[in-house]
Amino acid sequence: MSWNRVAVVGAGLIKFGELFEQSYEQMAAGAFQAAVGSVDRGFEPSQVDAAFVATQRGTLWGQEGIGGNTVPTAIGLAGIPCTRIENACPSGSDAFRVGAMAVASGVHDVVLVIGVEKMRDKSTEEGLLSRAASGHPIFTRGETAPVLFAPFATRHMHEYGTTREMLASVAVKNHYNGARDPFAHFQNEITVDDVLASPPVCHPLHLLDCCPQTDGAAATLLVSAERAAEFTDRPVFVAGFGVATDHPYLHEKTTFTALKATTAAAERAYKMAGVEPAQIDCAEVHDCFTITEILDIEDLGFVEKGKGGVASLDGETSLQGRIPVNTSGGLLAKGHPIGASGVAQLTECWWQLRGDAGERQVEMRNGYALQHNVGGRGSGVSVVNILTTNA
Amino acid sequence: MSWNRVAVVGAGLIKFGELFEQSYEQMAAGAFQAAVGSVDRGFEPSQVDAAFVATQRGTLWGQEGIGGNTVPTAIGLAGIPCTRIENACPSGSDAFRVGAMAVASGVHDVVLVIGVEKMRDKSTEEGLLSRAASGHPIFTRGETAPVLFAPFATRHMHEYGTTREMLASVAVKNHYNGARDPFAHFQNEITVDDVLASPPVCHPLHLLDCCPQTDGAAATLLVSAERAAEFTDRPVFVAGFGVATDHPYLHEKTTFTALKATTAAAERAYKMAGVEPAQIDCAEVHDCFTITEILDIEDLGFVEKGKGGVASLDGETSLQGRIPVNTSGGLLAKGHPIGASGVAQLTECWWQLRGDAGERQVEMRNGYALQHNVGGRGSGVSVVNILTTNA
Repeated sequence: MSWNRVAVVGAGLIKFGELFEQSYEQMAAGAFQAAVGSVDRGFEPSQVDAAFVATQRGTLWGQEGIGGNTVPTAIGLAGIPCTRIENACPSGSDAFRVGAMAVASGVHDVVLVIGVEKMRDKSTEEGLLSRAASGHPIFTRGETAPVLFAPFATRHMHEYGTTREMLASVAVKNHYNGARDPFAHFQNEITVDDVLASPPVCHPLHLLDCCPQTDGAAATLLVSAERAAEFTDRPVFVAGFGVATDHPYLHEKTTFTALKATTAAAERAYKMAGVEPAQIDCAEVHDCFTITEILDIEDLGFVEKGKGGVASLDGETSLQGRIPVNTSGGLLAKGHPIGASGVAQLTECWWQLRGDAGERQVEMRNGYALQHNVGGRGSGVSVVNILTTNA
Repeated sequence: MSWNRVAVVGAGLIKFGELFEQSYEQMAAGAFQAAVGSVDRGFEPSQVDAAFVATQRGTLWGQEGIGGNTVPTAIGLAGIPCTRIENACPSGSDAFRVGAMAVASGVHDVVLVIGVEKMRDKSTEEGLLSRAASGHPIFTRGETAPVLFAPFATRHMHEYGTTREMLASVAVKNHYNGARDPFAHFQNEITVDDVLASPPVCHPLHLLDCCPQTDGAAATLLVSAERAAEFTDRPVFVAGFGVATDHPYLHEKTTFTALKATTAAAERAYKMAGVEPAQIDCAEVHDCFTITEILDIEDLGFVEKGKGGVASLDGETSLQGRIPVNTSGGLLAKGHPIGASGVAQLTECWWQLRGDAGERQVEMRNGYALQHNVGGRGSGVSVVNILTTNA
């Protein structure tokens, strides 16, 4: 049956975008304040027992350094235990899982999970390419993210007849949703023609098939289920989660039409939560590229393998569709500040489950929302978290 | 009372040193094999449910990238959940705490905690200084580690009459112990005169007051206490742990004769374990510099504040002393491969508790061993773990 030993009693984020005017620490403080302010019965910052900070590029980009050390002081909690979690693009979702286990272990009663990422202050040349110059094994080979995901798109097109229009329909839907999310980096609607006509990046992915580089921060507050009533009468529980790794390099992959890490992580999460894919009411999934969302909805069991493109074009994943996906705008429109992304997705799930998603609100039939990230070179790791309103 | 819900049933490390001939992944595999081989009743690698990898400089140095993704495949466990933990110098000890909470939460039964760090493949100029060139807020100001710790030494000398000879006695003791540890980077004995005559680095710290730059890897295997008997009839339990952060920058410190993060982390760990400092039989503490060990033994409650230098000179912390400290040789002689250091210290504690420390073996009166790291710019975080043979 469901695990449900940990409750989410607060969640929030800052407006994603190009946040040159905010430091890493200010972004963290903004997200923490948003989460604190969201707690129905009020929350004193000093109630936080421990924190987990997701930041992926702290030492790569250079200006944040050691987030686990600097964030507590920045948010007024100097002294608390604080640990940085890094797990590629799922850093935020994995920090949430680790935070949930810390609560479930009985060691910490009230845990802050916060994701923060500065993506814009340094140019790609200063950041990534300086690593290439010093001999980084991936970047020196030109393996940027679009290059790692494009082969999955071409193979999916070849095997299943997926078209560029189907890919584009994912971006159109997510921008439609993002235009209704006040926290999204991009809040403009686009058309299939816009996507097709946007500049090519790596065939068949064009600019609007790719998520932007975005600064952002998000936070959630976790407490033991027994204490949830102190904070809210509308708790959301952690029903289950799953993590899986996969061979990290493309040449080790056995398929280019699925991300095995996602399939395995989802299987573990569904088992822990005691639910089937059909019971999920809405999902925030990792749409770093349009093809990724198509793979995700297949690998998570929402649609049959190979049908992701058609399902997207047919509106099955729209706000009114059978399984609404990326109601927040997703990485494509809301943005992808790596460490923050998973935590922001969980915030959207929390809003949807509590009926607080405004004009993005979808129908909650079973009371389950799923959050998913996949990442690492060639998708070496995936994390799936399932939240529920069912006690 | 004691927590004791998690047992350590295996631990091991590879010989620390300049390991140019081994890749990051090979080092991880070596440590994992050492831990597997140490399990009394045998251990199948496939029994590992989840892993936590401590690597501090993955993205800084550039060649390891995303350790959480690459380590599982490298050690034959592709597919398992694996998360990278980064928390400055205590990365390894914090990964151990997170792994223990994962077991205690009931989510994972058998957890691998592995610390791996490559320190030598890149020169300081290519690694740290290239970050300075790109605007890193610490390195650009010349705040390397000796510069951050030297003011604590001069202030301790000023307030308590601590001398360079007392500092040196720490290095002499740890090299004596390291000469008896086949895994230590340096296995040569030194004298107080050697330390005093070694080249100055940052007054009053000379070269032999500083730990070396070392490559290394270490691993531990954690299981739920109920399952310990499947693996050994000599289990070691996790009695407690504590983590504390502090204001990260030197200008925010309220004292230069103590590391507040250590005091707070120790208080939490002692409380969780239900023990007093006097009950600890031996300790592995963070001697990145000689002054650090002197601060540590005071902040951990082994000696009175201000008496750490005298106690070291008097042999209170030697193998035959009242409270043997850094029996493994410590960071000063064994080396400090950051992510691996804490896990290696825990391995030494495990050996001491089980009576397997060979000529370094000290008397176990109460069955408690303590492991400690402190780190981050100006010591922004500390982690203390306490292990015990008491069920």
